[in-house]
Amino acid sequence: MLITTKQNGERVELLSPTEMPKASGFLWNKQMMIQVNCRGYATAQFMQPEPAKYMHAPNLEAKSFMQPEQPYFAHHPGRFFYIKDEETGEIFSAPYEPVRAKLDQYCFSLGQSDIQWQIEHLGIEVELCLSLPEDDVVELWQLKVKNVSGRARKLSVYPYFPIGYMSWMNQSAKYRQDLGGVVASCITPYQKVADYFKNKDLKDKTFFLHDRAPTSYETIREVFEGEGGLHNPTGVQQSRLDNGDALYETPTAALQYQMVLDTDQQENYRFLLGPAFDDAEIANKRDRYFADTDFANTKEKYAAYVAQGKGSIEINTPDTQLNEFVNSWLPRQMFYHGDVNRLSTDPQTRNYIQDAMGMVYIKPDVTRAAFLHALAQQEESGAIPDGILLTEEAELKYINQIPHTDHCIWFPVCLRAYLDETNDYAIFDQPVQQFKGTESKTAFERITNAMRWLFNERDRRGLSYIAQGDWCDPMNMVGYKGKGVSGWLSMAAAYALNIWSDICKQLGENELSAEFKSNAEALNEAVNKHIWDGDWYARGITDDDVVFGTSKDEEGRIFLNPQSWAILANTADAEKRQKMIQQVEQQLETPYGVMMLAPSFTGMRDDVGRVTQKHPGSAENGSVYNHAAIFYIFSLYQAGETDRAFKLMSQMLTGPDEADYVQRGQLPVFIPNYYRGAYYQFPRTAGRSSQLFNTGTVSWVYRCIVEGLYGLKGTERGLSIEPQLPADWDNASAVRSFRGATFEVTIERADVTQTEVSVDGVPLSSNILEDIEAGKTYKVKVLIA
Amino acid sequence: MLITTKQNGERVELLSPTEMPKASGFLWNKQMMIQVNCRGYATAQFMQPEPAKYMHAPNLEAKSFMQPEQPYFAHHPGRFFYIKDEETGEIFSAPYEPVRAKLDQYCFSLGQSDIQWQIEHLGIEVELCLSLPEDDVVELWQLKVKNVSGRARKLSVYPYFPIGYMSWMNQSAKYRQDLGGVVASCITPYQKVADYFKNKDLKDKTFFLHDRAPTSYETIREVFEGEGGLHNPTGVQQSRLDNGDALYETPTAALQYQMVLDTDQQENYRFLLGPAFDDAEIANKRDRYFADTDFANTKEKYAAYVAQGKGSIEINTPDTQLNEFVNSWLPRQMFYHGDVNRLSTDPQTRNYIQDAMGMVYIKPDVTRAAFLHALAQQEESGAIPDGILLTEEAELKYINQIPHTDHCIWFPVCLRAYLDETNDYAIFDQPVQQFKGTESKTAFERITNAMRWLFNERDRRGLSYIAQGDWCDPMNMVGYKGKGVSGWLSMAAAYALNIWSDICKQLGENELSAEFKSNAEALNEAVNKHIWDGDWYARGITDDDVVFGTSKDEEGRIFLNPQSWAILANTADAEKRQKMIQQVEQQLETPYGVMMLAPSFTGMRDDVGRVTQKHPGSAENGSVYNHAAIFYIFSLYQAGETDRAFKLMSQMLTGPDEADYVQRGQLPVFIPNYYRGAYYQFPRTAGRSSQLFNTGTVSWVYRCIVEGLYGLKGTERGLSIEPQLPADWDNASAVRSFRGATFEVTIERADVTQTEVSVDGVPLSSNILEDIEAGKTYKVKVLIA
Repeated sequence: MLITTKQNGERVELLSPTEMPKASGFLWNKQMMIQVNCRGYATAQFMQPEPAKYMHAPNLEAKSFMQPEQPYFAHHPGRFFYIKDEETGEIFSAPYEPVRAKLDQYCFSLGQSDIQWQIEHLGIEVELCLSLPEDDVVELWQLKVKNVSGRARKLSVYPYFPIGYMSWMNQSAKYRQDLGGVVASCITPYQKVADYFKNKDLKDKTFFLHDRAPTSYETIREVFEGEGGLHNPTGVQQSRLDNGDALYETPTAALQYQMVLDTDQQENYRFLLGPAFDDAEIANKRDRYFADTDFANTKEKYAAYVAQGKGSIEINTPDTQLNEFVNSWLPRQMFYHGDVNRLSTDPQTRNYIQDAMGMVYIKPDVTRAAFLHALAQQEESGAIPDGILLTEEAELKYINQIPHTDHCIWFPVCLRAYLDETNDYAIFDQPVQQFKGTESKTAFERITNAMRWLFNERDRRGLSYIAQGDWCDPMNMVGYKGKGVSGWLSMAAAYALNIWSDICKQLGENELSAEFKSNAEALNEAVNKHIWDGDWYARGITDDDVVFGTSKDEEGRIFLNPQSWAILANTADAEKRQKMIQQVEQQLETPYGVMMLAPSFTGMRDDVGRVTQKHPGSAENGSVYNHAAIFYIFSLYQAGETDRAFKLMSQMLTGPDEADYVQRGQLPVFIPNYYRGAYYQFPRTAGRSSQLFNTGTVSWVYRCIVEGLYGLKGTERGLSIEPQLPADWDNASAVRSFRGATFEVTIERADVTQTEVSVDGVPLSSNILEDIEAGKTYKVKVLIA
Repeated sequence: MLITTKQNGERVELLSPTEMPKASGFLWNKQMMIQVNCRGYATAQFMQPEPAKYMHAPNLEAKSFMQPEQPYFAHHPGRFFYIKDEETGEIFSAPYEPVRAKLDQYCFSLGQSDIQWQIEHLGIEVELCLSLPEDDVVELWQLKVKNVSGRARKLSVYPYFPIGYMSWMNQSAKYRQDLGGVVASCITPYQKVADYFKNKDLKDKTFFLHDRAPTSYETIREVFEGEGGLHNPTGVQQSRLDNGDALYETPTAALQYQMVLDTDQQENYRFLLGPAFDDAEIANKRDRYFADTDFANTKEKYAAYVAQGKGSIEINTPDTQLNEFVNSWLPRQMFYHGDVNRLSTDPQTRNYIQDAMGMVYIKPDVTRAAFLHALAQQEESGAIPDGILLTEEAELKYINQIPHTDHCIWFPVCLRAYLDETNDYAIFDQPVQQFKGTESKTAFERITNAMRWLFNERDRRGLSYIAQGDWCDPMNMVGYKGKGVSGWLSMAAAYALNIWSDICKQLGENELSAEFKSNAEALNEAVNKHIWDGDWYARGITDDDVVFGTSKDEEGRIFLNPQSWAILANTADAEKRQKMIQQVEQQLETPYGVMMLAPSFTGMRDDVGRVTQKHPGSAENGSVYNHAAIFYIFSLYQAGETDRAFKLMSQMLTGPDEADYVQRGQLPVFIPNYYRGAYYQFPRTAGRSSQLFNTGTVSWVYRCIVEGLYGLKGTERGLSIEPQLPADWDNASAVRSFRGATFEVTIERADVTQTEVSVDGVPLSSNILEDIEAGKTYKVKVLIA
């Protein structure tokens, strides 16, 4: 059976909980994030200031970043509502878990700023809505229960929000008449004295508040579930809950509402869930949110916040799914990344810079500030640290303590998009004072220093050292002895140096420009000498001089990144480029996109390291790792490989066909960080989505749409216009915002030999629209061959 | 309904899975430990060399020491067997979870060296047996399925061993025809290079092997469980399992055995579960254990290993439950502690020393070696570190990095028992070379230095500094500024110094003896001046000169430890002692034992710290913390408070009455580290067992039985005989092993004014039996008043 999904403007709907059981959406604000699964499971985090939880698993959880392919299980944190027919004793649950009844109607509806369900069973209609406020940690829940059975009904409805195992040291939950709901408390376990003072102001309470008093309640998990179990709880089987307070037992929040509903009668309920420091804070939230009828103001403000995430292009193509995704969901995901930095306090430098690049198309001031903030953390040597501290108190975590050598390259690479969009070359004169220091240098000096450091970090062959890793994915054993080099990084360095050379030239720094151009050439030369394998570029050379990613390797024969960046950096001549593209097609392309390497490693390789530790086809080990794939696509647009670029991008966004789309269990509301690869090795699982929406991919997809597909790219002089529509499109149009002006662009295939552009009816002599006036609307007509 | 339990020599049986749902037993060997719950849930750990797991929760688990009151949940690790009637489709599971069918017969039977279940349902009898080998990490499972329905039956039986979420980075499972079972693999996630080399030899595989080929199998959790869920799995509903291999999906091990059973026909199966490094190791275990018919040799050897844990007394009292517990289960638990050090590599010093004390009654050589091993880690200053490293590679973990000031006292306190039992004063001449160093001092010098360090660490009032904690439970905020003092530790120091003074005297070191005696007196004097509160002793004085544990406090008014140790250290005169005992009775005694403090803290107290972070009545915060309670009992025996001592000890072992015994959910197969307290504040939960069998309590309980109840204590001259039977016992007997001889002791209440002892019919002139000859058996008759 094929799933039915319905796209309706800015909503996406799923009409069965079982066919795409992992389908999920996410909401976030400045302080929190929640991913909600169609069945009712949820993963939520908030900042205090490090990522923390207010709803827990039933056992002691390891603190970690968000997991790919999050495994759900019966007692996974979720938001559930049991409904019992008091006359027959029949029960079901909304949205689907934990009872898993066969529902008569089901709709999981993801909006830009809320998540809803409409379900119907036993003649009862249940509507659920989750929304967030703009700048506070609280979930706003609305429940509507309506009798559509045509006869009077007696029901009990039980919101069931399992709070989970908060702490082995001290946890409890109590129904609080005074506050109107359940308040669970815990204490952070065993601490050194120094940790105690650091942790004492953490929000250790979880509240679940109601706007209508319940008939009964329960806060002890084991009592509510009893021998009946989660799928048929003893508490729900009883006529009343036991009104128990959890004393060191696993806390939960269960309320019972008994009701008699006439035909078509409906009852509405609202609930608040979140963490708090004390009773006063809880009372404050209760007063604030319940005073707001139907949460209407709060929802409106939040919708306005999310709407800030509009991008700078609105497209209209023959592919309606692409249109909806690019116009609504993609900039939303990009805004999430750029506005809240994936809710971390020490983002990895490369992520921070690329997420900032996405904001170029939304709020370029944020991009500017982020670049300068990151540059302030440059080391004396010119090196850029592995993570960027967002606050004075933040610390670099485990992953950011491992030395990687790629961070410098992202500045020129991402600045290019910023400069093209804004023309703000004044950023380089900006003095940047050392973070936690006093020394000041201009942004220009800092990037120049970074480029020199980058170029210096090369071996006797002239290739870039890899140390304990570079990017995507770091291979930590290649160069840990200080000798191994990265082919990819050498090319990425050449690409960055080329861009920086160009920028130097634009700034009139001709001497520097020449220096960096020649550096880039030296790198490319070394790469072609040592890294070219005959039909593609290798990935690197180990400490012990073993070249890997070559035709001699049985696993990890070919890596995608060296090929993509050989195009971007002009490392490859036309002949090499053609060979590479052919090999990528043969070895790496799949119906789900282009794999990052192949064949996947199935075992450890001690001289390569971390990438071989990942499961074959998952994460970076041979997956369709979208962050790598998008650079290949970006390079294909640069190489004029229009159709191939679009095909691969299209697979990334929606899958090549609907059957695949179902297999992935993926609604097109976000781009996941990977689809499973190892297509030839493990076909059963190939194409599965990670379900993880944190990925540097999104800003590059947007850049590919703007600069590649539509070819509406900024230059110093104005807007360059060079669309690259796929061959089977006859036309497309877009509204593009750029430097304060609006461009209504229509593109048509015509009998021309090269692209012809006219503006407001007047043909342009080149494909660059100059002298743009802010506030003005331009009608741009483009004819393409 | 009252639970029925049956004690049968060295087995204990529980006849319902629902009335005592948390009842559990444990097995261990030199390398692993498993706690199994009556319903089929299990928690297992093994050493590699740090504690590790081979069966995991379904989410990312935090690594931690064993939790008290372990919360079970549907997907908690367990060992389950589904049984399906192929004709009717009915299913149930053994031992009880996850189906939770109402079984016709049920017996959970804990033996000294195995754990068994016998259940019957739908005319099918299922027997399960779990055992371990002596020195290897593998669970040996036996399953017997018998048709007792009186007609031929068609069944499917499914062993279901959920392996859980092994790693977010790399996990898989495969059915291996060649090895005969399921092998799951994973890789330790993201590592720095240094960690990689440390971790690369870890056993990252989990195997589940069979001795008979199954009809079908499944290794993917979500496929086996499907929409049916754990309580009614889709896999079991199908006619065959799908023979799926888990590729990064959550691994599980499920086998199907289809069978046709004639009337009374029985089928036997064996399974092996455990961790391994590679296939060779798995093949090796398969060959080794399956070659052993019915695991008979392995079980015999393991039984012999456990039987080494026999104690040095076998008692026979009017209390049969006490007899069985003390003769079988108590020395077993003591042996577990002493032989494997709770499966850690850096035991806390106080635990290590007290666990070693328990071995005095089992293998005194182990005690001797442990004392010397610990002394080798003494610091230059004389201080003893917070944890003892058992191997060169071990490191002190978080808890052992927090400075506590009590460690020195445990040497004399526990050595007393060793010397009394063995008369081995030669231990003090033993040269003890510094751990990881070369400096050598005799054991005598080291302890003398420790005692001087202990005495020096006092404030201007002459009281012992508490720093960031002492013992039971450390209060980390009292003296973190370096000024606060501990009343308890001051008394404990006096007690230790008194003992050391006595030992010095025995060794002819009269000058030192006088020095330490006078030190002890000085401490007692300071305590009586600053810590006595009028009716009891306070607990300490904070950095800011606030005395706490006094009548002025609303919470934490009275602590048990200062009262117990005031008796042991002779701090209190007879009048004070009487007052204290009365206050303990009024404020701390409960039907479940004596609480450690009262009232429990319900909120934080910033000048006291950690104890106030624990949940009221749980763990040390006002619980019946058995480790504290047993010292009170020990002190009561010393004070001649015979009846009170026995009453409190009896509560600890079996509870005051059967109703309570049920409430605790506790079979008397081990002493848990606490029963919930806060008896007056939270009566609903008071008396609940922690279910945690790691506790320093056990060796002291044994010492109380030997030295207190039976009064059969060693001295330099021989065996001192001074029983303290409770008033309502007319007689008791025991067989006591002591210095190689055997003493058959009968005690009778008689018309005497003081204890009269005769040996082999000859009256003794004192109550000390001298000139003991090893190998001889003495018949000792004791008449008491």
